[in-house]
Order: sequence, then C-alpha cells, then structure tokens
Amino acid sequence: MLNTLTPATIRETANALANVVNRTPIITSRSLNQQLGGLKLFLKAENFQRVGAFKFRGAYNALRQLSSEDKQKGVVTHSSGNHAQGVALAAKLLNIPATIVMPDDAPVIKRTATAAYGAQIISCSAAQREAVSAQLVDQHNYTLIHPYDNDHVIAGQGTAAWELIHDVPDLDIIFTPVGGGGLISGTALAIAALTPNIKLVGVEPAAGDDANRSWRQGTVCRLTAVPQTIADGLRTRFIGQRNLAIMRQYVTDMTTVTDQDIITTLQFVWSRLKIIIEPSAAVALAPLFCGHYHLPTGTKVGIILSGGNIDLTQCGFFHQLND
Amino acid sequence: MLNTLTPATIRETANALANVVNRTPIITSRSLNQQLGGLKLFLKAENFQRVGAFKFRGAYNALRQLSSEDKQKGVVTHSSGNHAQGVALAAKLLNIPATIVMPDDAPVIKRTATAAYGAQIISCSAAQREAVSAQLVDQHNYTLIHPYDNDHVIAGQGTAAWELIHDVPDLDIIFTPVGGGGLISGTALAIAALTPNIKLVGVEPAAGDDANRSWRQGTVCRLTAVPQTIADGLRTRFIGQRNLAIMRQYVTDMTTVTDQDIITTLQFVWSRLKIIIEPSAAVALAPLFCGHYHLPTGTKVGIILSGGNIDLTQCGFFHQLND
Repeated sequence: MLNTLTPATIRETANALANVVNRTPIITSRSLNQQLGGLKLFLKAENFQRVGAFKFRGAYNALRQLSSEDKQKGVVTHSSGNHAQGVALAAKLLNIPATIVMPDDAPVIKRTATAAYGAQIISCSAAQREAVSAQLVDQHNYTLIHPYDNDHVIAGQGTAAWELIHDVPDLDIIFTPVGGGGLISGTALAIAALTPNIKLVGVEPAAGDDANRSWRQGTVCRLTAVPQTIADGLRTRFIGQRNLAIMRQYVTDMTTVTDQDIITTLQFVWSRLKIIIEPSAAVALAPLFCGHYHLPTGTKVGIILSGGNIDLTQCGFFHQLND
Repeated sequence: MLNTLTPATIRETANALANVVNRTPIITSRSLNQQLGGLKLFLKAENFQRVGAFKFRGAYNALRQLSSEDKQKGVVTHSSGNHAQGVALAAKLLNIPATIVMPDDAPVIKRTATAAYGAQIISCSAAQREAVSAQLVDQHNYTLIHPYDNDHVIAGQGTAAWELIHDVPDLDIIFTPVGGGGLISGTALAIAALTPNIKLVGVEPAAGDDANRSWRQGTVCRLTAVPQTIADGLRTRFIGQRNLAIMRQYVTDMTTVTDQDIITTLQFVWSRLKIIIEPSAAVALAPLFCGHYHLPTGTKVGIILSGGNIDLTQCGFFHQLND
C-alpha cells in the first residue's frame, strides 16, 4: 500500500471530513509575535478538535473507508493516547465495534475517556500490546488501525494543514511535532497539493531523535527503548516506512527540543494564550519560542498545536482546591 | 454622576472601543450542551481579551475620556487584580502615567505583569490601600479610576455583552459573575440598548452574597470582612450605588454558587473546553453546570467568561516539571 497517497488524496479527504471534524480556530498573539522579533505566527489549535487532538481526523478517515463487511467485524488499535480516543469516537459515530488494547498502567482518565465513547478496552502489560492486538485481529478478523503507518490515517491528519493553508494565505513555513510521522507526512501532502513553496519543519523531543536521524539517513532508525520525554504523545521508537518516504520527499528540515524547552513553551501558552495544550503540542512551537531556530522578521509561520489532552489531576491547583 | 448612563451610551462606547479591544471569540460545545439537557450555551471568552480579562474594556473607556490636563496628571487605582492590569495597559496605550497601589502580599506574578505595562507600583498593607490612593490623589491630582463605581467603567464592561448579542441572535438569557457590579450593570445596559427581552442573571460566590442581598433589598449591603472564596476577582465587600441602581432596574434574577461548584465547573472548562479561565469566570457557568439553575431545553444562554488570569505557579504540574 506504500505510496498510494498523492496530493489529490488530501483534497478528497478534506472534502469528505469537512462536516465531521471541527474546523479549529487559528490563534494569533500580538505579544508572541513581538517576543519573537516580528515573526507572524498562526497557531492551528487542534486542541479544540473533537477528542481534543488532531488524531480524530486520521482515525475517522480510516474507519469511514472500511468495507461494510470490515465495519461489521470491527476495529482494534493499541494506543493509550489520543489515537485511542480518536478511533473510539470515530467508531461510535460510524457504528463500528472498536476494541482498544491499553497497558495496565494507562492513566485512569484516558481509560475513562475512551470507554465513554463506547469502545471495549482490553488491558495487558505495555510490552504485550502489539501481540495482544495481533491476536485479536486473528481471532475476530478485526482491522488494525495503525496510529501512523496507514495511508488513510496520514491523509486524515493532513486536513489540519489543509485548513490552515486555506485560512492563512501566503504562509512561508509550517512546523509540526513528530512522533510516528503521521501528522508531518499528511501536512507534507497538504502543502504539496496547495502551495508547494511552503517549507515544512518537523520537531522532535531530543530524548528520542529517531525521526531526525531517519530523515537524514534515509532509513528508519529504531530506538531500543521508549524515549523518556514529557511529550507523552511522541514516545514512539520509530517512524513508519511510508511516513519516511513522504518526509524524505517534502520535509525541508528537522530539529529537536529539550523537555525544558517544552515546559517553558507550555507555560507561556497556558498563561498568556489562555489555552490548554499538551506537552506534545508545545514541541512544534518550542524551537522558535526558545530561540533555537531563527527566521527573518515578517516570516509567516504556521504551527500545528496537535492537542490538549492532559491529566489535570496532576495539577496541584485542583488538588489543593478539592481538599 | 449617578445615572448619567443610558443604553445609548453603550452604543457609542462599543463603537469607540471597536478598534482597541479584542473582539473575543464565542465558544460552543456539543458535549456541554448535551450534558446540560439540550441548552444552547454561548460562552463569551473574555479570557482572550487584552490583559486576559474584560476589565481592559472599562479601564480603557475611562482613561480615553479624561481631559488632556487630567491625562497629563495621571491616574491611580488600588487593585491587585485584573483592573490594575487593565488600567496599566490602557495608560500605556494612551500615554498616561499610571500608579497602582498594591498590597504587600499581592502575588509576584500580578505585580510583574502590571509593572511590565509600565505602571508605577506602590506597595502598602492591604488595609491601607484606599487611604494611600486618596493621599496620592491629593498630592498629585491623579484621577482615581474606581474598578466598578464609575460610569465610564460600566459602559466599557458592557461592550462584551454588546458583542455577544450581536454575534448570537435570539439569546434568551445572559449570566454574568458579580463582584462590585461593573460587569453586570454594563451588561444590563447593553441588553436594554439592543434586545430588552433578554433576561439577565447575576451569580456571586455564596461566601459573599452581599450583591444578592443588596439587589433584593434595594440598599447596598456591606460585608464586614473580605469574603473567603476561591474566586479572587469577586472578593468585594459591597457593590456600588450606581451599579445597584442599574441592577434593580434591569436584572432578572441573582443567585449564588459554592466554591466547590466553582472548582467543579473550572475543571470541566479546563479539561474539556481546553481554555484557561480563572475561578471568577467559572462562577457565571456554575449554576447551570452544577444543576442548581434550571432552564427549558433549547434555551439560548449567553455566559460571560470574565477572564483567565491565574497563577500557574500554583499548578503542581509545572512545579514538578520545573524540578
């Protein structure tokens, strides 16, 4: 199925999803632009997407295109994060049975949110997730919805940039976070379809720079352990083959940020922009915000804020208040 | 100066402020509407206003109308909260010297934000704030910008509802928080000017229900101590005479919420709507959200989310991350 995707796919996908996904707002800030030396930033706020993250786009796009027979059999995925919730809601809307394999130690809040969309949850140890999912596919003929190594998922994720490019004319460059590569490869295709001269930069937590290395070397580099980073949505050990192929063709640059950069950026966004984003979303803004990446004054920059799902029970503020 | 305000004043004010204030977004949520039994809620997100709260509207409106001579002499106010920041930014924009009298124990973050707008800050004990301000007025002929008992401030605050009513046709009812009464009296005048049939409900923390009692009794009731509530923007001991006069004429109902109601509502807004609001802003939504106030299915409800300034250093999440 590698490389069945073309820029035209994104156009069809954007039309197909238009009435299902939220057309999320684009946020601008005078003070942020000033602070960054006169850049013009446009933040695509996918924290306001359904399920709180862009992942709903790809999940819905994959599920809507299953055959009637496959829809009846159901789907399975093994994410404990935003992709799980995306699949669960898409399945609910399309009346497809969904099973989510979650590690025992997944936060209660994520388990609850996923279950609330009506998905069946199966617990196992983190190490067994893939095996358990594969077993379910064998037993029940479920379709596995891979979180990023899937053409329909990639095309769906690309619709966020599709909207951004339509809403902000003359963008010069777009930054996305990179985990498995679903968002950045979809974004690449949206750019290619609409305005190929827009540059595209992928940002990764420094603790797991496999996508940076893969993109530079042209082969998928695999980390031996799950990277330790606050950006919980980007704790992938390797990107997909099809994601790498698209990235090699369209991505202009790749860079990394430290967890401290992520936290500094997160704190600014919460306190000054007044929106809740998750650490993984701060990753795309961090290189500019922390002064590690320089662009000429006046550059029009798109940033994909990927999501806003964060466990507020970690927030002492609410602890204190609930006491 | 009592009762120089008319609904027409709001119209002029809205026009005068249109290019200075942010026209803040109106937020809707499918899941919130469902959860509240099919109400249609429209949240006017003044947390996205300049300085992070509606208070900028009133402050700017008061300062812009000073005589040239008074502008040159400067202004003073004695707030440690959002009004202080509103006055400081308005003064900066209008090139007016501003002095803010702040209690010694004001949070560092508020002091820093106010100073960042270029205002002079004078510290004193909390009990001496009024006296110190009065002294500064005497010494320097500063104009005191009262946070709510001031016609221009009231008219400015009313422009938030003015925008809301323009952007959402056929609203049935609007809820605002009540501290000193500036926002609700401005809102009342906006309703009177545009669509007098919209009902208006004021909500107050139960710990300080002086506005509820004042409105029912028709005289200003004064609390002997500052009310102990998490809603730090509403810790006023009494409302203004001119605010009461307007409230008696236009307000349909008043109600109260507990701190637990405020926290429950705040947590929902942060975690599900993905926006940062402060406890005082949650107050207006809390009666409906917590099931204490019932309206028929389909009712179109406007809620003024008053602001989003909150000290995130209280948030253990960032502590933990910064360690």
